[in-house]
Amino acid sequence: MAILVQKFGGTSVANAERIRRCAKKVIKAVKDGYQVVVVASARGHQTDELIADARELNKNPPTREMDQLLSTGEQQTVALFAMALHAMGYEAISFTGGQVKMLTDSAHTKARIKSIDADRIRKHLDQSKIVIVAGFQGVDENENITTLGRGGSDTSAVALAAALKAKECEIYTDVDGVYTTDPRIFKKAVKMQQISYDEMLELASLGAGVMHIRAVAFGKNYNVRIHVRNSANDNEGTVITHEVPKMEGVVVSGATVQKDMAKITLVGVDNVPGNAAKLFARLAKAKVVIHDIIQTELSPKKANLSFMIAIPDLDTAKEAAENIKDELGCESVFIRDDVALVSVVGVGMRTHYGVAEKMFGALAKAKINIDSITTSEIRISCAIDRKQAEKALKAVCVAFELDKPAIQRSKT
Amino acid sequence: MAILVQKFGGTSVANAERIRRCAKKVIKAVKDGYQVVVVASARGHQTDELIADARELNKNPPTREMDQLLSTGEQQTVALFAMALHAMGYEAISFTGGQVKMLTDSAHTKARIKSIDADRIRKHLDQSKIVIVAGFQGVDENENITTLGRGGSDTSAVALAAALKAKECEIYTDVDGVYTTDPRIFKKAVKMQQISYDEMLELASLGAGVMHIRAVAFGKNYNVRIHVRNSANDNEGTVITHEVPKMEGVVVSGATVQKDMAKITLVGVDNVPGNAAKLFARLAKAKVVIHDIIQTELSPKKANLSFMIAIPDLDTAKEAAENIKDELGCESVFIRDDVALVSVVGVGMRTHYGVAEKMFGALAKAKINIDSITTSEIRISCAIDRKQAEKALKAVCVAFELDKPAIQRSKT
Repeated sequence: MAILVQKFGGTSVANAERIRRCAKKVIKAVKDGYQVVVVASARGHQTDELIADARELNKNPPTREMDQLLSTGEQQTVALFAMALHAMGYEAISFTGGQVKMLTDSAHTKARIKSIDADRIRKHLDQSKIVIVAGFQGVDENENITTLGRGGSDTSAVALAAALKAKECEIYTDVDGVYTTDPRIFKKAVKMQQISYDEMLELASLGAGVMHIRAVAFGKNYNVRIHVRNSANDNEGTVITHEVPKMEGVVVSGATVQKDMAKITLVGVDNVPGNAAKLFARLAKAKVVIHDIIQTELSPKKANLSFMIAIPDLDTAKEAAENIKDELGCESVFIRDDVALVSVVGVGMRTHYGVAEKMFGALAKAKINIDSITTSEIRISCAIDRKQAEKALKAVCVAFELDKPAIQRSKT
Repeated sequence: MAILVQKFGGTSVANAERIRRCAKKVIKAVKDGYQVVVVASARGHQTDELIADARELNKNPPTREMDQLLSTGEQQTVALFAMALHAMGYEAISFTGGQVKMLTDSAHTKARIKSIDADRIRKHLDQSKIVIVAGFQGVDENENITTLGRGGSDTSAVALAAALKAKECEIYTDVDGVYTTDPRIFKKAVKMQQISYDEMLELASLGAGVMHIRAVAFGKNYNVRIHVRNSANDNEGTVITHEVPKMEGVVVSGATVQKDMAKITLVGVDNVPGNAAKLFARLAKAKVVIHDIIQTELSPKKANLSFMIAIPDLDTAKEAAENIKDELGCESVFIRDDVALVSVVGVGMRTHYGVAEKMFGALAKAKINIDSITTSEIRISCAIDRKQAEKALKAVCVAFELDKPAIQRSKT
């Protein structure tokens, strides 16, 4: 029998009524002939409440104890989920991460999965039980409870799907799937039927929140078909899978805008080997997440070194840059704290010309000045004035026809 | 180094401020030179809230899932307790029942402890850490989480004290210790300095709520010195220990009254072997808890068979009695649902005469009629009219001088 993994997020299981709604989806899959493994997150805002409880006692709690505390949220959900299924007449059994030997390293609060013992799960599936596993958590070799950090439950689900060779991993959330762009800004955004792992990775790193980057990367590495769906309806969602030939015809799959960005430029840095490394080592030590890096030569001896960061990291990054400035021979540090980053993503870029031209043209037509440009193999990002962020996203979406399903767009 | 086990109940750890207060008691013990193991219950009303969450989804939830759910309450407390100690500058590590291999049978919601692996705890104690263990919970041989039922955290604490050969097991609660009687009824009740396991077992079975009967029995069997104390102050509490010679001088240690009792009498039962067994087997099957049994012969062929039960069990017991009536040749079933049971307990009764006489005398003087009398080796109980319950308790307390410390009482 084929195995289906279904993951339900915190909003989807926030109360009894919603748990029952999710349980009905599980039962439907059972009736469709699947052996079902459910992965569930903590209910609603429970994790936040536990974090608040912890901070009341300790501003900087030991991470091991934090994991011991937070893992209870998912444990409660899975027990309640099993009870709901029992009440509906279905045999179900819940497990913590430890009980299914979700073995991780010991990096508490951001542990990485090393292995899963799928045997215990298979045994219960073969007894016609629905198996419910607590997401977000595992155990290290000494049976200390660990948690996987942000997006951890998605990662648990995809990892279980890989270990169990599941046919698909359904990720239930509160939206219908992955959209071409943020529908709150561009109302005509459409849901994608499918998207490649690489595109989803780019979109996730650009802040498109539907799925966490680690789970997508896991899915790519272990070849897990991921289906992002809405727990509130029965609509087909978006399938994240390997690139298929027809995807190449789609030049741009999605567009994003990140509004709260800043750009720091170190002007006139000595252009000698190792200077960039020194700067970014210092920033890494200060735990600043760097988005894009741009270096431009001013003369054979001097260069400008810029990088984009999120506004909450600005003060820390600024301090680090000022501290290392003299060591790099830098003349001055220039800050722009009013930047937004608009990006387009698509695997089709690999084989199509004219994408950059179309993007810059759309921005120009909308009278939006481009501060700087960065690209990857399947992405183009432009830094622009924050005040023009939404206008820019809309212009780009219209240019790339992101209001139409992929197959209906013109093939430039 | 001597080991001290300190157990804190749900009220004592209900919020951050109270957890810190408990943590200070732990630190004091560390400063006094002890290696300390803390056992903690779920915070405040959390267990009740989780039970309500479960019932919302399933009126009769599977017990395995109930344990999976409820065990999270204690797990949260121990993690928070460890964080509090860290914030105060002390190394601490928390464990679930499973992590310290608190092995139980598989009787979910009322599991019995089979063994404890004390090695992991000792290892951390020897690294100068304070060890915090979740009470109330264990795991069975298949790593299913189990809970120990009512009074489970007390039992966990006493079991850990036994396994670790602790010097003492402190049970912190919201009262100063064990009182000679209920101070809400007899205001002059005094706290006992010490009490024997057997007396405490009798008092616990008579509804004196301070400690659960299972924990006391465990303490008796494994020779654990138990110290019942108040988490809100530093007063010495009551030590529960083996009988010491001076205890014999105390004729009556404590008195209790159980107000919501009923008495069922089967009138004129055929006095043949096996009839009583049949009746009580039927009652056990109906899960009725029997308090006292009184049989009196009416004639060589007929007897009256009475038993005391708590009011909540009355309907079930009545139905069972009516159903089996004819089979026992019983003429009629007589119910008294207005009974209270006043009892005195003391190991001194074994060696002293006149206790019964003094009790009956005190009741007579207060013009209280005695419906029936039952005794054990260290207890005398009288069933009386419920309306006279408090008056009866007071009369008995005055007669046995339960307003004075044991050593000041006259040795009748």
